Amino acid sequence: MPTTAALSVPSAGSSFEQTTIEQRELRDDDVRIDIHYAGICHSDIHQVREEWGSAIFPMTPGHEIAGVVSAVGDAVTRHKVGDRVGVGCMVDSCGECDYCKDGEEQFCAKGAVMTYNGRGYDGEETKGGYAQSVVVSERFVCRVPDGIGIDEAAPLLCAGITTYTPLRRYAAGPGKKVAVIGLGGLGHMAVKLAVAMGAEVTVLSRSMAKADDAKTLGAHHYQATEDADALKSLRGSFDLIINTVSANLRLQTYMSMLKPLGALVNVGLPTQPYEVSPGSLIGGSKTLAGSNIGGIAATQEMLDFCAEHGIGASIETIPADEVDAAYDRVVAGDVRYRFVIDTSTIAPA
Amino acid sequence: MPTTAALSVPSAGSSFEQTTIEQRELRDDDVRIDIHYAGICHSDIHQVREEWGSAIFPMTPGHEIAGVVSAVGDAVTRHKVGDRVGVGCMVDSCGECDYCKDGEEQFCAKGAVMTYNGRGYDGEETKGGYAQSVVVSERFVCRVPDGIGIDEAAPLLCAGITTYTPLRRYAAGPGKKVAVIGLGGLGHMAVKLAVAMGAEVTVLSRSMAKADDAKTLGAHHYQATEDADALKSLRGSFDLIINTVSANLRLQTYMSMLKPLGALVNVGLPTQPYEVSPGSLIGGSKTLAGSNIGGIAATQEMLDFCAEHGIGASIETIPADEVDAAYDRVVAGDVRYRFVIDTSTIAPA
Repeated sequence: MPTTAALSVPSAGSSFEQTTIEQRELRDDDVRIDIHYAGICHSDIHQVREEWGSAIFPMTPGHEIAGVVSAVGDAVTRHKVGDRVGVGCMVDSCGECDYCKDGEEQFCAKGAVMTYNGRGYDGEETKGGYAQSVVVSERFVCRVPDGIGIDEAAPLLCAGITTYTPLRRYAAGPGKKVAVIGLGGLGHMAVKLAVAMGAEVTVLSRSMAKADDAKTLGAHHYQATEDADALKSLRGSFDLIINTVSANLRLQTYMSMLKPLGALVNVGLPTQPYEVSPGSLIGGSKTLAGSNIGGIAATQEMLDFCAEHGIGASIETIPADEVDAAYDRVVAGDVRYRFVIDTSTIAPA
Repeated sequence: MPTTAALSVPSAGSSFEQTTIEQRELRDDDVRIDIHYAGICHSDIHQVREEWGSAIFPMTPGHEIAGVVSAVGDAVTRHKVGDRVGVGCMVDSCGECDYCKDGEEQFCAKGAVMTYNGRGYDGEETKGGYAQSVVVSERFVCRVPDGIGIDEAAPLLCAGITTYTPLRRYAAGPGKKVAVIGLGGLGHMAVKLAVAMGAEVTVLSRSMAKADDAKTLGAHHYQATEDADALKSLRGSFDLIINTVSANLRLQTYMSMLKPLGALVNVGLPTQPYEVSPGSLIGGSKTLAGSNIGGIAATQEMLDFCAEHGIGASIETIPADEVDAAYDRVVAGDVRYRFVIDTSTIAPA
């Protein structure tokens, strides 16, 4: 069985080890990817620390994967050796249900196979992108177009599609006022994408600390949410609010900032229930929604859109031996705006 | 100043008096309507009893108005004497803001003028449809097409458009599974409309008491919500749920009945906040929304749709001296499914 150098945690919450893991032989429809970079998503941390229920260990996380095709199975038609490609949160789905046919593989009726901390339909545990190589069915491999660096492309595979999907679904574009709550890994992508779509973008962040960054990212306005009076002045302002934070916000405040027919879409996952008054939804025919990544066709569309508009994630590249420290910094909100692991630095003992 | 016979409450919560009220002289763009029937909406009761904040007394309620044009102003082009027409919840709006231009007059930036318990832009108090006549700008008067009785048309002007709007916005139709929570004035219209749109319709009602009625209204399935085990079997079943009840339901239960990408839309107004878990929205990219009546063009479209499909409200017609008793029956849920006042029976002392 082939192997690859990888980062792995042996049990919940333990430190990463640089080790060697097995991967499957190429199937006819498989692509082997030499991974160059893997982004660190906050959900990696939740799973490594087993904060989201029972997880599978040892675990090699990572679902923001970018690299170059190194081998293809006999039946592969979409990719060839040398192509720059990426893999996101899913590596398989049934392909036959209504959701798969509609390009919404994340809702596959059989259950999409997650890139790591999951099991393939054959029962094999899946291993993610904190590794030097991965084998994935070509259907779940996207092209990384020229014009995006492989490093800054990696986070697009989760943070990019997670924010692109609601911006498209709720028609962000010229003439629309979009607010983004939180300027972190997800938030900074939401800002870049919404600006590129032509919307007028406001960043709502706790303090003024990121005001300069927001401007650099292209945001048109910035408002510190710790200033309650200023927030009141934003009543009825936005067509769309993308909430990227996983803190327990008082959503009622933000619902009031929507125009009639507006939508507040959540992509962060707080621990407490949302609570909003009936009148705050009904009075202005407003929407409170959630959004969960996006399908493969949409992911490719997002990558193409990013290339066309010169958008990549804003990253801080780290070597393999700094991942544990990076996790602590992500939890502390101390990253601008996504850590990316240079997987060439993984060196099994 | 012209006058008309009307029902009026002198102060919050008092009984109706049969009296005479003044109405304005016809302006150039005004239509005078001989009212034949006025529906009793639960929101009339809330306002007559001053349960929704400070109200204007004496009050003549009624925003489900149907009758025949008896006079028109010099500049009126849309309606002529003898036309069958209806008036709903609004009688004026600025006509110039984005919402008015988009046919969403209920969200008028200047504030739409409510049919009663409101004030026109000239400061005059508005009086509703529990009367023998009303004067309204032609822009807010809809045609009642042949094929709908004037009596069964009246409730369409509020209950009809309130349920039609979210069914259209969320694309109820062939291949879609729609559930309606509550089988009252709003719920019975939601069922009729969704069935006519071609959706597969399930009624979710507290007990089995209305199961036969639901079938008569065209519903395909019926589920008593007091049967908690049966509710569990409905997980992931619906594309759209219209919640018409104003009781404080546990929405979390109903969110779980939605398919991925599904929407739960509230048109009833409970007293307690909605509470749903973040995961219940984000996991399946689901929507929790509210919906507030609909614009004038949509109201006309709804009336035309009803005529085309032979749909009217299911009504119980009452004379003027039974309105107080009817209010108590509405509050008790004892009406199938809408009271309509025969306004010819109003006889001022």
